[in-house]
Amino acid sequence: MIDHTHDAAASSWVEGADGHGDFPVQNLPLGIFSREGEMRRIGSAIGDYVADLAGLAEAGLLPHVLRPALAEQTLNALFRLDAVTRRTLRHALFALLTDPAQQGAVSPWLYPAQSVELHLPFAIGDYSDFYVGIHHATNIGKLFRPDNPLLPNYKHVPIGYHGRASSIRVSGAPVPRPKGQIKSPQADQPTYAPCRRLDYELELGIWIAGDHALGQTIPIGDAWDRIAGVSLLNDWSARDIQAWEYQPLGPFLSKSFLTTISPWVITAEALAPFRVAQPARPEGDPAPLPHLWDAQDQARGALSITLSVTLASAAMRESGMGPLELSRGTAQEAMYWTAGQIVTHHASNGCDLHTGDLLGTGTLSGPAPGSKGSLMEISQGGQHPVNLPTGEQRSFLEDGDELTLHARAMREGYRAIGFGPCRGVVQQAW
Amino acid sequence: MIDHTHDAAASSWVEGADGHGDFPVQNLPLGIFSREGEMRRIGSAIGDYVADLAGLAEAGLLPHVLRPALAEQTLNALFRLDAVTRRTLRHALFALLTDPAQQGAVSPWLYPAQSVELHLPFAIGDYSDFYVGIHHATNIGKLFRPDNPLLPNYKHVPIGYHGRASSIRVSGAPVPRPKGQIKSPQADQPTYAPCRRLDYELELGIWIAGDHALGQTIPIGDAWDRIAGVSLLNDWSARDIQAWEYQPLGPFLSKSFLTTISPWVITAEALAPFRVAQPARPEGDPAPLPHLWDAQDQARGALSITLSVTLASAAMRESGMGPLELSRGTAQEAMYWTAGQIVTHHASNGCDLHTGDLLGTGTLSGPAPGSKGSLMEISQGGQHPVNLPTGEQRSFLEDGDELTLHARAMREGYRAIGFGPCRGVVQQAW
Repeated sequence: MIDHTHDAAASSWVEGADGHGDFPVQNLPLGIFSREGEMRRIGSAIGDYVADLAGLAEAGLLPHVLRPALAEQTLNALFRLDAVTRRTLRHALFALLTDPAQQGAVSPWLYPAQSVELHLPFAIGDYSDFYVGIHHATNIGKLFRPDNPLLPNYKHVPIGYHGRASSIRVSGAPVPRPKGQIKSPQADQPTYAPCRRLDYELELGIWIAGDHALGQTIPIGDAWDRIAGVSLLNDWSARDIQAWEYQPLGPFLSKSFLTTISPWVITAEALAPFRVAQPARPEGDPAPLPHLWDAQDQARGALSITLSVTLASAAMRESGMGPLELSRGTAQEAMYWTAGQIVTHHASNGCDLHTGDLLGTGTLSGPAPGSKGSLMEISQGGQHPVNLPTGEQRSFLEDGDELTLHARAMREGYRAIGFGPCRGVVQQAW
Repeated sequence: MIDHTHDAAASSWVEGADGHGDFPVQNLPLGIFSREGEMRRIGSAIGDYVADLAGLAEAGLLPHVLRPALAEQTLNALFRLDAVTRRTLRHALFALLTDPAQQGAVSPWLYPAQSVELHLPFAIGDYSDFYVGIHHATNIGKLFRPDNPLLPNYKHVPIGYHGRASSIRVSGAPVPRPKGQIKSPQADQPTYAPCRRLDYELELGIWIAGDHALGQTIPIGDAWDRIAGVSLLNDWSARDIQAWEYQPLGPFLSKSFLTTISPWVITAEALAPFRVAQPARPEGDPAPLPHLWDAQDQARGALSITLSVTLASAAMRESGMGPLELSRGTAQEAMYWTAGQIVTHHASNGCDLHTGDLLGTGTLSGPAPGSKGSLMEISQGGQHPVNLPTGEQRSFLEDGDELTLHARAMREGYRAIGFGPCRGVVQQAW
């Protein structure tokens, strides 16, 4: 899987691609875009351009076998193809964008990124959200149970729950402050009011490739064959609504008002060099049950991805200030369970997974104080607000705040690749 | 909404329809069927026949405006139409099936029910499951907290959570016993093994009609305009997997292995006469918050539907015995929150609901001992097994058990209408 398309020295003739922080030719993420007044099409990001893959296929510049799937308006058909066929797309696209002789033929199919609109990459069947960030689970657990933050199942089960698929949007979609039932500890009765403790959660979203029937499972050794790729995911959370509603069946309306993803799918092929060893479990932790354990998955199941979050209040933007970094950490340190274990666990009861299903990792907080992936953790439930350079303070998000998640896969010897932003601006409740 | 199509004296020329327990001409449920080797089509059940609505529309016997929606392979397009247009279908179909002069023209489009296969009525976008059966919540709560079975939020919030849409199947689909992580109280470690406490949950499923955008809500007065109809729903539950996994985010793999629905949508129009007054809340219970309260909804928000559950073990079927009735009760007595309140609550945070979304009510147990909607309640967590006529006992479901949910809407002065069975036979784990 690690081949010449990952060569750090590879260079593209596309202007600015080689020095691009997110989208050098080693990345080639897939997504859905539209030009003004036109239909949605499949594209790939290269530098500050979007390559029109449907157009390139129509022009005969990509493998003929991919043409029907590339003519679709979502990535679902493409990721229903087997991995070998899919991989021909990466290789063909890499060849086109690195061979200067192709510049004349390909250039008409490159559009400036700022001239297109990006859309959901898949028709999302089901969305599930996990809780594999052990430092997050510990930080949140401590707010409720200081002596015993992690529940007994945590180190045995990759904890997850079902989420809402209909309210997933791509980066840039407005974030209307939700309303809901809120009951303050002092009050006798709840009220229906705008959320006062609006938070974000820094997550990765794992996209599923391929389908299996109900009553079948996914052996851990095959799990990565079912991973199409990864995006950033912001699991916006209304902490006050959540606190009142979540017993006994879990979070519901505190989450379903919006989930934002970064629109580019960083493919499993692009991530191959950044799959590294899963950190050893601390001494005394139980070993995963056999169906969740695989030597290969342990050796190459973690993701060397740096994650960060920035905040810019309306006042900061008006003053021309840059955003404030709220946290910085890595997926590798945050995830107690691997992406493969998440996928295998999800299907371990016979649940059918399908192309375009989305699996959130859960909040990815690192062990360091500066790597917490939500304001709930950073402000310790609102007790320690963050100071902004304007003199403003934030325990939770205020109207006008612009919150952005960032991710970069990095590893010695390889060209870093980025995910593109996952951004939202909070709007006043309706 | 209560018009001549509900006239108890109305008679159909279709043989056996007038005396039919489920599908007299006053019902006219909608669903999706296929004949062997043919495409899926929209149909309606009349007696022991299925009327081919696509065929009737092609033949010019139904309103022209419905023709494109009736040519689809799911009900989604039909239920995206406004309610007035949709209602023309009921009236036209009623006229065709009650007018003996139409028998010659219509008969070619009637197929014996046993000659067709039934399918999911909608492409289901999202599935949510509620917990509005207060006797169920109390019965289950008592197993954990004998003195304080209901949590403080229960009487303020229609508690719900997200479910798995991909694993919903229609009546008759096999029920493979799931595997999962199970930890008995005595054991130090969990094991991955076939579920030993397989249960059913008797629910109604509410189908959504129409769409609204993210950030909008559904006023309680408009909630029934967004209800397409109702089916039976069996929320199969693996109690041992559930007990180990559900903290802190709720049930997940203990539910997602399968959900079974009855394939016919009993439309909101058919249910109109059976909408009755919601029982008054017990003295001392809090009033619903204003956004969840509407006089009309209280006056006509409950459903006069009798629900029952039957079990036939493999040995019972082999001996030619009829099934054993495990419970009998009514939706009206079971539901603390109305269908309208469920719909309004779901959208109260701005979550977008769409045509074909499915909302389970939660287990509908009545107040009487014989009206409990799950084996967990009937056997009190396995302590009091049910005696079968073969001498077998059941605390939970065994391989080969055939479990069927039944529902009939009944009210003085109206012809009763049935839902058709919601059935499954438990299969050995893979």
